[in-house]
Amino acid sequence: MTGEKKRVEVCYSPSQWHLYKNNYEIAVVIDVLRATSAICTAVENGVTIVPVSSVEEAKDYQNKGYIAAAERDGQIVEGFDMGNSPVSYKDPELKGKTVVLTTTNGTTAINIAREKETVVIGSLNNLDSLCKWLKEQDKNILLLGSGWKDKFNLEDTICAGAIADELIESQKFFAEEDSTIAAKFIYRSAKENIFSFLKASSHRKRLRNLNLNEDVKYCLTPNNLTVVPILKGDEIVAVNLEVEKA
Amino acid sequence: MTGEKKRVEVCYSPSQWHLYKNNYEIAVVIDVLRATSAICTAVENGVTIVPVSSVEEAKDYQNKGYIAAAERDGQIVEGFDMGNSPVSYKDPELKGKTVVLTTTNGTTAINIAREKETVVIGSLNNLDSLCKWLKEQDKNILLLGSGWKDKFNLEDTICAGAIADELIESQKFFAEEDSTIAAKFIYRSAKENIFSFLKASSHRKRLRNLNLNEDVKYCLTPNNLTVVPILKGDEIVAVNLEVEKA
Repeated sequence: MTGEKKRVEVCYSPSQWHLYKNNYEIAVVIDVLRATSAICTAVENGVTIVPVSSVEEAKDYQNKGYIAAAERDGQIVEGFDMGNSPVSYKDPELKGKTVVLTTTNGTTAINIAREKETVVIGSLNNLDSLCKWLKEQDKNILLLGSGWKDKFNLEDTICAGAIADELIESQKFFAEEDSTIAAKFIYRSAKENIFSFLKASSHRKRLRNLNLNEDVKYCLTPNNLTVVPILKGDEIVAVNLEVEKA
Repeated sequence: MTGEKKRVEVCYSPSQWHLYKNNYEIAVVIDVLRATSAICTAVENGVTIVPVSSVEEAKDYQNKGYIAAAERDGQIVEGFDMGNSPVSYKDPELKGKTVVLTTTNGTTAINIAREKETVVIGSLNNLDSLCKWLKEQDKNILLLGSGWKDKFNLEDTICAGAIADELIESQKFFAEEDSTIAAKFIYRSAKENIFSFLKASSHRKRLRNLNLNEDVKYCLTPNNLTVVPILKGDEIVAVNLEVEKA
């Protein structure tokens, strides 16, 4: 550590990325409902994820023999076996395999963040492990919410707020942006019962209408995973956890 | 009134306008620190405001003999007599006159919102009068925060949240966007002491460093004005207040 505080800030959606992106070495991509929760679950289960932005790209990989998953507007795209339901990535049959994934918001956000030196995947599921790892890096960090079709969303903001709060409390980080102050504030108000806090949120309603309430409960459960997924080339894999195990 | 609820939503900054702008007849432009607070003060004092986006445009008007005001980064631009300090618009000498105004964020937001049928000016200063007027319109309303250089800011969000809260509580309006839920929530948490709530905000720090704390206190004082400024062609003037006076 240099002893100098590093910066951690929150960008609410990919449409704001260009306004915030400068001077950060690490991007954390967050899509709580459900892409990054699914990716964390997959990687913890030994699955490698290849994130792609479009359904066409996923289709191309599928035609080459890859397992491909595609979600749009909360539903599995026709012609694909999987979407972004986290539970589906726990399948022991998938262990050791690669899944190509495209989702409405999350995989696009990952591909936008690629220009950074380091891209890691955040969710409520891997909150503590991720924060522990981030604190060890001594780098400036931008937390990117995937939003909903480029708009602000509550669940990604709560998750980003949780990470920012933990990092700032460690005294190793500072924040200056109003977006970060607001995210921290919303997280602190929501943290006792995130599920209930989000009852009015637009995407929870959307998923409830699709009978995906169990998925929502899973995604809103902090720390049921310990993995830190990181982008290496085209693949998302588990970061080396030696530091954490020490 | 049609009896059907109308929609009120919050857009955090001009950079998000394209994502939110459809299906609203009224845009309310908000730049609490300090452009819209200054405009409300001016219009209440009988001053007509012509908002322009660039310093060059303001200069052109100045060369034609207009009184012109220009602010960038919190300071009066060289060559202009006024910026966006609300107090300066209380000058009795200005009564009945027209001032051409350009500011870092607020006047750009007004010009973006021009495509709407109706553009009105919101601030904490004219909160109650504005809400009263909006409730009488029976139209869908988009509240546009000016933000800071296209980023989210806290003070505009609090003001937008206050308007949304009041309109929704009247049972004449509903909201669905997460941005609106969050803005309402932040407002409710801040409302007992907005000045103190904003102490960490980026723009308050910026203005404090410029010795503009008195301006900040003025701008954060709800309901010290009763005017509802509206854009008519190129000019911002007081809306007809007959309905309110009835």
